[in-house]
Amino acid sequence: MKKLINSLIVLALVGTAISCSNSESGGKSNKGALASSAAEKVYVAPGEHDEFYAFMSGGYSGNLTVYGLPSGRMFKEIPVFSQFPTSGYGYSEETKPMLNTSFGFVPWDDAHHPDISQTNGELDGRWIFINGNNTPRIARISLTTFETEEIIEVPNSAGNHSSSFITENTEYVVAGTRFSVPIPQKDMPIKDYKSNFKGSLSFISVDPEHGHMDIKFQLMMPGFNYDLSHPGRDKSHGWFFFTTYNTEEANSLLEVNASQNDKDFIAAVNWKKIEEYVNNGGGTMMPANYAHNVYDESTHTATTTMKKEVLTVDPLKVPGAVYFLPTPKSPHGCDVDPSGQYIIGNGKLSADLTVHSFDKMIAAIEAEKFDGEAYGIPILKFEDVLAGTVKSGGLGPLHTEFDGKGNAYTTFFISSEVVKWKLGTWEVIDRKPTYYSVGHLMIPGGNSRKPFGKYVVAMNKITKDRYLPVGPEMEHSAQIYDISGEKMELIYDFPTHGEPHYAAGCPAELLKNNAKKIYRLDENKHPYAITSPDQAKVERKGNEVHIYMSTIRSHFTPDNIEGVKVGDKVYFHITNHEQDFDVPHGFSMIGQNSSELLIMPGQTKTNTWEPKKVGVWPFYCTDFCSALHQEMQGYIRVSPADSDIELSWSLGED
Amino acid sequence: MKKLINSLIVLALVGTAISCSNSESGGKSNKGALASSAAEKVYVAPGEHDEFYAFMSGGYSGNLTVYGLPSGRMFKEIPVFSQFPTSGYGYSEETKPMLNTSFGFVPWDDAHHPDISQTNGELDGRWIFINGNNTPRIARISLTTFETEEIIEVPNSAGNHSSSFITENTEYVVAGTRFSVPIPQKDMPIKDYKSNFKGSLSFISVDPEHGHMDIKFQLMMPGFNYDLSHPGRDKSHGWFFFTTYNTEEANSLLEVNASQNDKDFIAAVNWKKIEEYVNNGGGTMMPANYAHNVYDESTHTATTTMKKEVLTVDPLKVPGAVYFLPTPKSPHGCDVDPSGQYIIGNGKLSADLTVHSFDKMIAAIEAEKFDGEAYGIPILKFEDVLAGTVKSGGLGPLHTEFDGKGNAYTTFFISSEVVKWKLGTWEVIDRKPTYYSVGHLMIPGGNSRKPFGKYVVAMNKITKDRYLPVGPEMEHSAQIYDISGEKMELIYDFPTHGEPHYAAGCPAELLKNNAKKIYRLDENKHPYAITSPDQAKVERKGNEVHIYMSTIRSHFTPDNIEGVKVGDKVYFHITNHEQDFDVPHGFSMIGQNSSELLIMPGQTKTNTWEPKKVGVWPFYCTDFCSALHQEMQGYIRVSPADSDIELSWSLGED
Repeated sequence: MKKLINSLIVLALVGTAISCSNSESGGKSNKGALASSAAEKVYVAPGEHDEFYAFMSGGYSGNLTVYGLPSGRMFKEIPVFSQFPTSGYGYSEETKPMLNTSFGFVPWDDAHHPDISQTNGELDGRWIFINGNNTPRIARISLTTFETEEIIEVPNSAGNHSSSFITENTEYVVAGTRFSVPIPQKDMPIKDYKSNFKGSLSFISVDPEHGHMDIKFQLMMPGFNYDLSHPGRDKSHGWFFFTTYNTEEANSLLEVNASQNDKDFIAAVNWKKIEEYVNNGGGTMMPANYAHNVYDESTHTATTTMKKEVLTVDPLKVPGAVYFLPTPKSPHGCDVDPSGQYIIGNGKLSADLTVHSFDKMIAAIEAEKFDGEAYGIPILKFEDVLAGTVKSGGLGPLHTEFDGKGNAYTTFFISSEVVKWKLGTWEVIDRKPTYYSVGHLMIPGGNSRKPFGKYVVAMNKITKDRYLPVGPEMEHSAQIYDISGEKMELIYDFPTHGEPHYAAGCPAELLKNNAKKIYRLDENKHPYAITSPDQAKVERKGNEVHIYMSTIRSHFTPDNIEGVKVGDKVYFHITNHEQDFDVPHGFSMIGQNSSELLIMPGQTKTNTWEPKKVGVWPFYCTDFCSALHQEMQGYIRVSPADSDIELSWSLGED
Repeated sequence: MKKLINSLIVLALVGTAISCSNSESGGKSNKGALASSAAEKVYVAPGEHDEFYAFMSGGYSGNLTVYGLPSGRMFKEIPVFSQFPTSGYGYSEETKPMLNTSFGFVPWDDAHHPDISQTNGELDGRWIFINGNNTPRIARISLTTFETEEIIEVPNSAGNHSSSFITENTEYVVAGTRFSVPIPQKDMPIKDYKSNFKGSLSFISVDPEHGHMDIKFQLMMPGFNYDLSHPGRDKSHGWFFFTTYNTEEANSLLEVNASQNDKDFIAAVNWKKIEEYVNNGGGTMMPANYAHNVYDESTHTATTTMKKEVLTVDPLKVPGAVYFLPTPKSPHGCDVDPSGQYIIGNGKLSADLTVHSFDKMIAAIEAEKFDGEAYGIPILKFEDVLAGTVKSGGLGPLHTEFDGKGNAYTTFFISSEVVKWKLGTWEVIDRKPTYYSVGHLMIPGGNSRKPFGKYVVAMNKITKDRYLPVGPEMEHSAQIYDISGEKMELIYDFPTHGEPHYAAGCPAELLKNNAKKIYRLDENKHPYAITSPDQAKVERKGNEVHIYMSTIRSHFTPDNIEGVKVGDKVYFHITNHEQDFDVPHGFSMIGQNSSELLIMPGQTKTNTWEPKKVGVWPFYCTDFCSALHQEMQGYIRVSPADSDIELSWSLGED
């Protein structure tokens, strides 16, 4: 056993060693004329725009970041699962409900796999979905406002990792358990894991008009770890594929104990069949408790609904719904080619890639050629479903994307490279090193029916010496390769914010004309909005003081307020009366135990302040808004709790 | 009055109008051969490093960001005044004290003006300081770890804006009030502002060895708005210069009421004289209450000390310590050239720049040629101190930096441009548009005795169409110009994170060899650290459960824990036992009402979890650390509050 541990440690460390030897060559290959050519390829001149959007998950930042390609510039960090002091997300009264869960307010998560909505298997640019790993949730982000509009918690799940991938008409966004748990949860010995814990695969329906999510059903699977997934498409539409590891059902020291089996599985789920089953009354409604948080753009406010039950499905009750495809060496990535024919399982402790054939799988199912079962689920024979094996020569394959021209690109963590190979012939066409130890990769549309195969972005896990040093904690690093020719060409390194696990890209044209520029004041239905500065007022309700405040360049209305007392809870409801693009105002109050508010034109936001000391206290605009921005300030007088000073407010009465 | 308001609104809006007309030309001027040349200038090939560090304030993000120049890539966001879910800053037990203030825990601030420590007026690369505007604070960040090491609150201040600039041997970091307030605070009518409110200028000493900050004295000035400041240098070392506006002492609608006087002042403060005064027992100790938060690198832990008094100085009691230099049109930026001779006041409602002469100022003081006084402080005659006027032809000058070759560069917000002019002759040499409405600008070392005048970075306030659209909320935008020739050349646009107000840059060589790569385990003095995985343990103290946990690729020790009960407060004390560069581990627990911990090699961090439901709950590593990262997980069994299950823990006992 000790020997096995040692060999695994060597395996785990080898990436680093390889990385260091690569270091030398990294800088040298791009000088002179080649550097000039690469420079021109990534350069986006002032005033010009990038060709592609890249939406990168923030990983442990909890957010989603928006980059341009080929420049590698970050245009926005969209707060999703984490508090974001910059804008007040998760601090303002309107957005705090977005982070509610059955565990209470959870200010952080680990955001992994963004996926853009699709119609007929092609990106349609309406929404982007992303999963929260730690406290299982799925978020939906608008691709007109680029803001998070909805978060649904996923009950009966843990380590929500094989998520959030969508079917080819956005019928479902899928969320799969990484860590199996007792379902329902109960106090039981951890060592009784085997055969008692379950892994749930949740199919969450997406309303075709508004995008609203609802858990349609949860498939209760054996207690494996469901690592990644992708939908079938085109000919395999109606199926969903999930990699599993830890089919050993180990509950401790998984780096050793979950690496015992030569093969784990890809689970093939016929969701159309299960959908039909539940539409006909199948499944078992189970008590549950999970939050559904929806942000309403017209009220600029989120609300939480706690949902109390969920429909569960036992796969054994739906014959023909689930099969296991044996796949070597703890498969990680699970990717489906644009035709829907090939399902690629990347055994992360392997050198080779396993490619399954959808047609062969169907034939084997129809012929009922099984190789036993696992917890009652039929196992297909490896040889019967195998389309081919890519003899890569690399180590530690993780993820595969496609260029739409018959080629696939697979990342290798341990040997630190991207390998280009040909679908159908399985021959390796090219390989290029990554600096260092690449995880996911992304080609815009590269996991849809219609990829845009001009660039591939490698998201590397180890940064080390790629940039000027900044202490022990560093950003992760991405690299962009031009893949328009036969050979890949590394053209640029750029740091990424947080830890991107996967990304979703699309051509600029899909989104750029739909992006919202302002919120219309005449559509603002916030209950504390005021439609013009002359409606500004201050109201007392017991010890609550509600300030209906206006901002417009460059003053607050009102900007002098008296009659607030120690012990009051003051609500600042700020409406930004600008109606021009890119004129936000910010609001902050000295000593506030909260963040600022960054208020977009036409928007209303609220935060609170509980003054603890008498005095005259200032507030000001935090976003440089005009030549007279520095003059945009005001004062609030705070009197003792027993003061009889009446509320009053004014502007310009010096 | 209405007319005045209207004209001011026109003035405030004109920047936008100009910006839009500039938009067309922005993209066109850099095509073809020129674009190719600019591309090569900004391109840093894979494996190569940038020439300069640029530390940009995050503004309303509360943080400090580190960029490379000329590439414009962001290498790190250093959390300073705001909670940062990515690393657990402001959430972990060790770092929560960093955000303590006399107002309680304040999770956000508005970070404005970074300044790198100096020796003999040249950047020495030891620390960088930055101010929190909203709840007045000054932070010191290490330039070896690139982490915040210390934050001191500034009492008797509000809108701490004319901060955090340092003297040329880092004797002091200076913090000045933007919003005058009653000192001490009291319940009084806002309209009694005039002559009753005060503006404090705080001189905070910096320990030459450790950098520790302590408020040496606060100068109690008239109730103006102290907007920006810079130290004298070389010949003017020993003086500090502050711009003022609102010498009208208006308390409402400042965009009108604070723009009445034709001239406000630059306050010249002879801090050496005041230092001598207080060293000889001068000044008045005043009760106060402010937090001093210090992070100890050896314990990896911050502590808060509440300080209870502060030394105040009445400027009238120190003859010769303070003078007012009349400066036209609400001056904003206050910059001192490398020789220390010229003090530039940028009247933000003006077209021209006013340059004062230090020599003339001294001569006028010595000749006692005063033009009256303000609250007892002598006012020098404008003509007597004027060195010259730059007839810029622009509108809305804000800030000036220097290239060390006799040239100055001034930003113009309203006319949206950078203007290069010659010190001494005041002639305009070049002007280039900015896209759009530039605020600060930065030349590495550009406000020291030794600038590195190769690039200037313009930090623009309006972004609009510069990048692919991302909805109403956007990043701000910077532009980099090559200033190595006679004419400036715009070479690149890059987005910035938060809203940079000022930046500090330095050559890469100053810092790159000193950057720390790991924390040494044998120097870890954290009280809950364990020096090897075999010391891992779990202890109960009443309803507190302390888990001393180890992380190393790729498992936690222990990874199975039982005996935790509902109602317990669980402390995870995680020590990362890696000692290799760039091998952090992350830790998160499902349903935790906190952020993750991102733990650097050799470091110990703690967060808490209060389990509310019985069950078996997983935790995992959130930073992809090896080929077997996905296996790095564990479980905690939670039993009912009245359970008699004993604490137990294990690793590998399946």
